[in-house]
Amino acid sequence: SRNIRLAVIPGDGIGTEVVAEGLKVLEAVGGKVETTTYDLGAKRYHETGETLPDTVLDELRGYDAILLGAIGDPSVPPGVLERDLLLRLRFDLDHYVNLRPVKLFPGVETPLGGVRPEDIDMVVVREGTEGLYAGAGGVLRRGTPHEIATQESVNTAHGVERVVRYAFDKALSRPRRKLTLVHKTNVLTYAGDLWARTVDRVSLEYPDVETDYCHIDAASMFFVNQPQRFDVIVTDNLFGDIITDIGAAIAGGIGLAASGNINPERTAPSMFEPVHGSAPDIAGQGKADPTATILSVAMLLDHLGLAEEAARVEQAVADDLVERQTGWSGRTTQEIGDDITARVAG
Amino acid sequence: SRNIRLAVIPGDGIGTEVVAEGLKVLEAVGGKVETTTYDLGAKRYHETGETLPDTVLDELRGYDAILLGAIGDPSVPPGVLERDLLLRLRFDLDHYVNLRPVKLFPGVETPLGGVRPEDIDMVVVREGTEGLYAGAGGVLRRGTPHEIATQESVNTAHGVERVVRYAFDKALSRPRRKLTLVHKTNVLTYAGDLWARTVDRVSLEYPDVETDYCHIDAASMFFVNQPQRFDVIVTDNLFGDIITDIGAAIAGGIGLAASGNINPERTAPSMFEPVHGSAPDIAGQGKADPTATILSVAMLLDHLGLAEEAARVEQAVADDLVERQTGWSGRTTQEIGDDITARVAG
Ligand SMILES: CC(C)[C@H](C(=O)O)[C@@H](O)C(=O)O
Ligand SMILES: CC(C)[C@H](C(=O)O)[C@@H](O)C(=O)O
Repeated sequence: SRNIRLAVIPGDGIGTEVVAEGLKVLEAVGGKVETTTYDLGAKRYHETGETLPDTVLDELRGYDAILLGAIGDPSVPPGVLERDLLLRLRFDLDHYVNLRPVKLFPGVETPLGGVRPEDIDMVVVREGTEGLYAGAGGVLRRGTPHEIATQESVNTAHGVERVVRYAFDKALSRPRRKLTLVHKTNVLTYAGDLWARTVDRVSLEYPDVETDYCHIDAASMFFVNQPQRFDVIVTDNLFGDIITDIGAAIAGGIGLAASGNINPERTAPSMFEPVHGSAPDIAGQGKADPTATILSVAMLLDHLGLAEEAARVEQAVADDLVERQTGWSGRTTQEIGDDITARVAG
Repeated sequence: SRNIRLAVIPGDGIGTEVVAEGLKVLEAVGGKVETTTYDLGAKRYHETGETLPDTVLDELRGYDAILLGAIGDPSVPPGVLERDLLLRLRFDLDHYVNLRPVKLFPGVETPLGGVRPEDIDMVVVREGTEGLYAGAGGVLRRGTPHEIATQESVNTAHGVERVVRYAFDKALSRPRRKLTLVHKTNVLTYAGDLWARTVDRVSLEYPDVETDYCHIDAASMFFVNQPQRFDVIVTDNLFGDIITDIGAAIAGGIGLAASGNINPERTAPSMFEPVHGSAPDIAGQGKADPTATILSVAMLLDHLGLAEEAARVEQAVADDLVERQTGWSGRTTQEIGDDITARVAG
């Protein structure tokens, strides 16, 4: 049905501003959208000490999807909101696929010279529920000359195989049918061995998908000087974090990069968010580009089976992006949202 | 004295070819160079099962410096030569500074549009003896659906502080005097806290150095769209591995990226090597660019106190690079080496 029950977490900084535009576009698509807003983030943390109360997490499970703006504020110690709110959502709602398209839209300026839109068209399937993000590790003798701090990457057959399977399916659905594993098997030998063996084994079930392997360092370089190399990429949580920011850079900047934290089995709602952060330096000034959030709304629609609506939003963004190059810039967050909304509605 | 006792490890693939050119340039600089070549690498491993015998490691300690080509071959399981040879050298010779300049020479083509040489001029100080490269980790129930593979990043106050101090000194010696810590403190909270606290504390002793912090994902993006941001970067082993490959990409490619594995206290010889790998696909064809190795030789000379000689080699490379843009390409490995050698000698 076209009735969407949506939980909205605007979050911190520019999060509120960009989410407002995302919602505008979502309404314009048509159908019924019921939204409930949750005031999670720095403000609530300062006022109540709460990051993500269990009762709120339980409530969130009842929605069709979650739209999130951005989490993080310099007034909160590093890691508190990230770990206890954003990553807790991803982990507890089992968002094991962090889906991040890297696509250069026509008309968008890239810092890479001589690159055409067809050269940058990939999807990164980033694992979202384990690896170095597990929070495993510890510290001994903190603050002394004998301090030791560890940080552990946890990788399970269960966790790796399911995201690898998702990536193979994704590759099969695209014209090039190419899947590249990005890891660092020559140094992270235990984790790398699990990832490489899993890709090898699952690949036997996908004879039509060409598989490739690339070390994270080389892949990061190829994003810059040979982005054509990639179609679908599967990688772990941290490597995915890094290369999708390089991806954002080459595809026109963080203002355009969308993402979906997907629970493919739908045992809990998936969560859609721009790749960018809360950008406290420009918050409240109408300077943020809401496009990444709007493209995340398109991913949300697609996830809910509304492919036609998703395509309509993506087309509206594409058209807007083409017009931007003709010097039509300097619009506020709201103006960009209004213009894209008008295209979707009209 | 100008008498250099040098251990040479050409290694695998193009390693042999590029090292030959590096040595040619080194001889041309003048002074006495005594070289001893060690046949470590894939061939020796296959013939004898040896990677780095203890006796060889002990012998290597007696030299003034080591010049290394490249290590790694697809015929050897991933990690064997990397861990037991290359990383063992870095770890056992206490190369705690992995120094990697990222500099766009005039005349060199960068994939970034509209960027000038002065926009890309930084030095990455990568930690070289701990972090995720420690080899810590393990696997349980390998090959079963219940497999778990871990990989641990080990960070010590001792290890972090010494490399941070080196980086502050480096920053102080450069005109901009800016040091950026690159990490992921919001997720790798234990390790990140140690790194951030150490930089904060040591910064008090360097009031003339401006310090900055950047998450690895954002830093990777800024390498592509705001490289001007960076002067000296200090970071851990894995993040350093990744950003220096992005650095190589933006500064004209892996064929130009030099590095030094430095033991600042000189308790063991430092080791100089191009950032690139053994490139088995083009090995033996005279296609490899020896420039990265020649620039590593310049770093070697500088490390041995031969600053004038180092500058001469770097200038010869700079001049060669300017000429390349006038369409003078298609030279073989040996021809490039000969041309740079002629400039150094003449
Ligand atoms: C804010 C941070 C925890 C997060 C991450 O590292 O995953 C962000 O960088 C992202 O990519 O969504
Ligand atoms: C070959 C590999 C072990 C090595 C590393 O990861 O350090 C290489 O990528 C480098 O950067 O020198």
